[in-house]
Amino acid sequence: MSRPRILVINPNSNQLVTQGLEQALKPLGFEGGPEIVCETLTEGPYGIESQADVDGVAMPLRRLVEGDNHSAAFVIACYSDPGLHVCREATDRPVFGIAECGVLTALARAETFGVIAIAQRSIRRHVRYLRQMGLMDRLTRERPLNMSVAETASGEGTLAKMIEVGRALKDEDGSGAIVMGCAGMARHRRPLEQALGIPVIDPTQAAVTMALGTVQFSHH
Amino acid sequence: MSRPRILVINPNSNQLVTQGLEQALKPLGFEGGPEIVCETLTEGPYGIESQADVDGVAMPLRRLVEGDNHSAAFVIACYSDPGLHVCREATDRPVFGIAECGVLTALARAETFGVIAIAQRSIRRHVRYLRQMGLMDRLTRERPLNMSVAETASGEGTLAKMIEVGRALKDEDGSGAIVMGCAGMARHRRPLEQALGIPVIDPTQAAVTMALGTVQFSHH
Amino acid sequence: MSRPRILVINPNSNQLVTQGLEQALKPLGFEGGPEIVCETLTEGPYGIESQADVDGVAMPLRRLVEGDNHSAAFVIACYSDPGLHVCREATDRPVFGIAECGVLTALARAETFGVIAIAQRSIRRHVRYLRQMGLMDRLTRERPLNMSVAETASGEGTLAKMIEVGRALKDEDGSGAIVMGCAGMARHRRPLEQALGIPVIDPTQAAVTMALGTVQFSHH
Amino acid sequence: MSRPRILVINPNSNQLVTQGLEQALKPLGFEGGPEIVCETLTEGPYGIESQADVDGVAMPLRRLVEGDNHSAAFVIACYSDPGLHVCREATDRPVFGIAECGVLTALARAETFGVIAIAQRSIRRHVRYLRQMGLMDRLTRERPLNMSVAETASGEGTLAKMIEVGRALKDEDGSGAIVMGCAGMARHRRPLEQALGIPVIDPTQAAVTMALGTVQFSHH
Amino acid sequence: MSRPRILVINPNSNQLVTQGLEQALKPLGFEGGPEIVCETLTEGPYGIESQADVDGVAMPLRRLVEGDNHSAAFVIACYSDPGLHVCREATDRPVFGIAECGVLTALARAETFGVIAIAQRSIRRHVRYLRQMGLMDRLTRERPLNMSVAETASGEGTLAKMIEVGRALKDEDGSGAIVMGCAGMARHRRPLEQALGIPVIDPTQAAVTMALGTVQFSHH
Amino acid sequence: MSRPRILVINPNSNQLVTQGLEQALKPLGFEGGPEIVCETLTEGPYGIESQADVDGVAMPLRRLVEGDNHSAAFVIACYSDPGLHVCREATDRPVFGIAECGVLTALARAETFGVIAIAQRSIRRHVRYLRQMGLMDRLTRERPLNMSVAETASGEGTLAKMIEVGRALKDEDGSGAIVMGCAGMARHRRPLEQALGIPVIDPTQAAVTMALGTVQFSHH
Repeated sequence: MSRPRILVINPNSNQLVTQGLEQALKPLGFEGGPEIVCETLTEGPYGIESQADVDGVAMPLRRLVEGDNHSAAFVIACYSDPGLHVCREATDRPVFGIAECGVLTALARAETFGVIAIAQRSIRRHVRYLRQMGLMDRLTRERPLNMSVAETASGEGTLAKMIEVGRALKDEDGSGAIVMGCAGMARHRRPLEQALGIPVIDPTQAAVTMALGTVQFSHH
Repeated sequence: MSRPRILVINPNSNQLVTQGLEQALKPLGFEGGPEIVCETLTEGPYGIESQADVDGVAMPLRRLVEGDNHSAAFVIACYSDPGLHVCREATDRPVFGIAECGVLTALARAETFGVIAIAQRSIRRHVRYLRQMGLMDRLTRERPLNMSVAETASGEGTLAKMIEVGRALKDEDGSGAIVMGCAGMARHRRPLEQALGIPVIDPTQAAVTMALGTVQFSHH
Repeated sequence: MSRPRILVINPNSNQLVTQGLEQALKPLGFEGGPEIVCETLTEGPYGIESQADVDGVAMPLRRLVEGDNHSAAFVIACYSDPGLHVCREATDRPVFGIAECGVLTALARAETFGVIAIAQRSIRRHVRYLRQMGLMDRLTRERPLNMSVAETASGEGTLAKMIEVGRALKDEDGSGAIVMGCAGMARHRRPLEQALGIPVIDPTQAAVTMALGTVQFSHH
Repeated sequence: MSRPRILVINPNSNQLVTQGLEQALKPLGFEGGPEIVCETLTEGPYGIESQADVDGVAMPLRRLVEGDNHSAAFVIACYSDPGLHVCREATDRPVFGIAECGVLTALARAETFGVIAIAQRSIRRHVRYLRQMGLMDRLTRERPLNMSVAETASGEGTLAKMIEVGRALKDEDGSGAIVMGCAGMARHRRPLEQALGIPVIDPTQAAVTMALGTVQFSHH
Repeated sequence: MSRPRILVINPNSNQLVTQGLEQALKPLGFEGGPEIVCETLTEGPYGIESQADVDGVAMPLRRLVEGDNHSAAFVIACYSDPGLHVCREATDRPVFGIAECGVLTALARAETFGVIAIAQRSIRRHVRYLRQMGLMDRLTRERPLNMSVAETASGEGTLAKMIEVGRALKDEDGSGAIVMGCAGMARHRRPLEQALGIPVIDPTQAAVTMALGTVQFSHH
Repeated sequence: MSRPRILVINPNSNQLVTQGLEQALKPLGFEGGPEIVCETLTEGPYGIESQADVDGVAMPLRRLVEGDNHSAAFVIACYSDPGLHVCREATDRPVFGIAECGVLTALARAETFGVIAIAQRSIRRHVRYLRQMGLMDRLTRERPLNMSVAETASGEGTLAKMIEVGRALKDEDGSGAIVMGCAGMARHRRPLEQALGIPVIDPTQAAVTMALGTVQFSHH
């Protein structure tokens, strides 16, 4: 019998991001556990930075989900959770959004959480989404790196900047945990956590963890 | 190298409940993954039904956590999350409460959630705790089975009663997911989910899933 | 000098609905005031009933707004406010959503409001949106007609059913005003208001009123 | 047939303020539309700055409304909405408060709003009222000009000070729109909006717009 | 040295209500403690039932407070807290509203509270006020007796009706304490509490208790 | 007939704190009123500073309450309200927590309140408790003295530091009243109130006031 599959969809068309997800999720690839497959939405933009980028991938994501008869669960790996509800409408199988799962996992670790965004312009969208989820009460603040997605992915100064912003979230804003507000920051999670001394949540890892539990408990 | 250990603590002294937890968590026992060990708090009462039962195990739980040098993470397996904050104060390792994790996991699955409690008298305590967590906005309602913990664990009519209460939560109250408000109901999760047609969350499974992800990502 | 134009976009492709909007908005067509033009989104589905219908028109609406150099303001005439934020991102001119404006206008008329939805399945989406807007505190309840959009538009029994549902919102739920949760109910507004004895808000009329004020005060 | 009348009541006895309202509302004076009449509450104080000023005009406003058989709608043109509920109790015709309408209109334009108050001492009263209306969730902050009503009305430095405060609301507090928290600032609306680059709402204009829509749709 | 005085003002002109207050407050008349004096606002209406009644006494109450050089604290003994903020503006001495104090005292006794109103029409006003105070989270429900103030004061069936409504608040709505939403119900407090088996709060007694503590601790 | 007794329990074992409570509560010791008795929980720690200190006294407090057949009401005199719910479960007589009563009393005095904590580390626990009580809406901020309990009790610089922190709460944060977040600060209440010019609440005095009213009205 084949292993159930968790499909992690990178809604942008940047293959390097998808490869980064594969790397970041390896610790959940258990023998005897679900297969975790990362896939690029080829119709997606190179990066998801604007509302148009977010809304533009909703229906392509749905088509991908509808056309998939194999996967046991889906994870949409973009911190704006594009198309989450329209994908859930398309299937009875579970669909997870990494923003929602990232925040929910932070709430399981600490009294309060802060968020590191890449760009200032995303914060208003993220906060609107937190309000939609009813999860504002324990948010301290979201602060931006003020870097482009590209800079964040490749730049050498990224970790240093994340530590600086994370310290402000912890010390000035009183955050007890940090959510990294982007799908492409996973390799910085451990050094950031060590530098800050509080839990740091990678949202894709958080979502795939929840997906793994869901799949395991419905197949055994 | 030994596998990291997740210690799941049953705060009541009923060994059958601990055995039920072991059974319920088997699907997460991956080769190459963390070891999941269930332990009974021998000083605990036979069941945790009152506020005194809850408050009475807080310090014993803390002592157990403080005295444990081996575990990588702890899960307190009682739906009132007894001693959660006092245990977190005692260690830098993660401590998860199953009520918190159960609700957070339900929020990752559906717009709204309802809770099945065993007894009416617990609901006021549970709702106070939901308010403390800032997680009331998407709660529909908590409804009781009006059975004792003992009846729930053993009785044949339990599943039928859970389906009846779950249907009320879904159809009358508009719940999109159900949280089982007790550590001892896990074996009913799948049939209840099938009967209702919406996600049903066992809180211990939810918490141990989160613990597993946390441990894996901090050890790899 | 030409009059400034308010473009009211019907995101579904049903021309009868667009004609109904034109009819409903005639009282705001003042000589010397802005021109009010209703347009059908020809790419839209015949009715907007599902999340896919909502998300599927977001980018077409944005393209329509981006390609329009003449209008002074835009109104998206569907009670799910599809594409509202992505359209706002595309232009500096004001874009109004009828759901948001309908609810805000109800709040200017009474202490509390209720909503009449066409179908049960829309209510969860509408409530999620109310939570996103931070406008839940004075909502009493949303109740469905349980009719299709087609039935509502044409059926003779529609008004009678609306009065029945409106009475429940008023008498059982304590609503002080009613929002009609659909763009195609305008012709029932006055008789419903007379039957209920409390303010009844047509959301398109509410939004175009706000657009008219905005346009007038920025052009004079 | 005579045109329906909207009565805009200036609750202070300063005729210059009433004349300013007339001037500010001219763009809504459509041929074929409702007649907009501004009236001074002669019993009112010269300016409404304290709680006593607010509470002292409630019953005089009610008597004015009760004694008026001609108007189709009323607007109370003071940013504390004095007597709003007692006037609503006195008539079945709509009564609008400019504070409520100003905030509601700002919510139709942007994700978040800030308020410019004249004096620091008013802010506590305004915030209490926002809490009463259940409209705090999208407020960023209210900041004072720290000028008297008289200075604001006449002073040359008023606009410059409003731009300074508006920039703080936009840039430091993240406001997406600004509400001018006084009935006598209308002539500064357009230059302030141009200077800030975000929507600026004059509350009287917002309220009379809503009144106009309400009257039009109930008379046609 | 004379004892400090707490002035309890009955804002209606019904002397029997004032005498009832005197009777109800006797247990706080300690030798060596503050003098508690009940006074009728002779300009008040015979009963306070409408918004006009509420708003009509605000300025007379302020004048009474301003003209009083002797009292150490004031209590406004009407469950709508008329004139509370305008009186506070007039004096540095503490002014207590019985509605606010009644609810706050209920919150010190139980997890949740319900309110018994005399008339249905008052409930909307009371709930608006609870929202203004930010004290909605632990409210279960307010239910009316549907009696006039006069009937309540004198009628023999009042207690029976209060028990019936109180039982609904307790058993159907889950109230852990009851606030009597009127200044004239004090003599029913003890039998109602005995019948229901949960705390019943008379708001005037609650407010004068708080006033007594405040006065004692600022004079000793 | 003996006077009813209010038992004020100091949950720490520091007798000087208990003596300070006795001193602070003398103004409520009326002839003919309830007897106020302060008692030390001998099993308690020397000071309650950590979560372990809080949770460690819950069951001892309950045993003390259960073993007491004489007292008419109980007050738990520690600003973390340890054991409040487990004590309430143990008796039908009223049990008051000073944190809850202190905050509720502040809400009866001003629009907003701030809290002075002794140590930074307590603030997170206090805020979690405020969220549990549903009393966050009117909180401005909690600021620490950053002194030990011992320093606070004895140090000469305590009042000066409290005035400094209180001024920040008033002037920077907009607090209308201050709650002293500790049971051992009572002797500073009056000078602090005089220095700040806004109400300052000692929580034990607030709680015993409420207890006194409750006892008086149930015994007369």
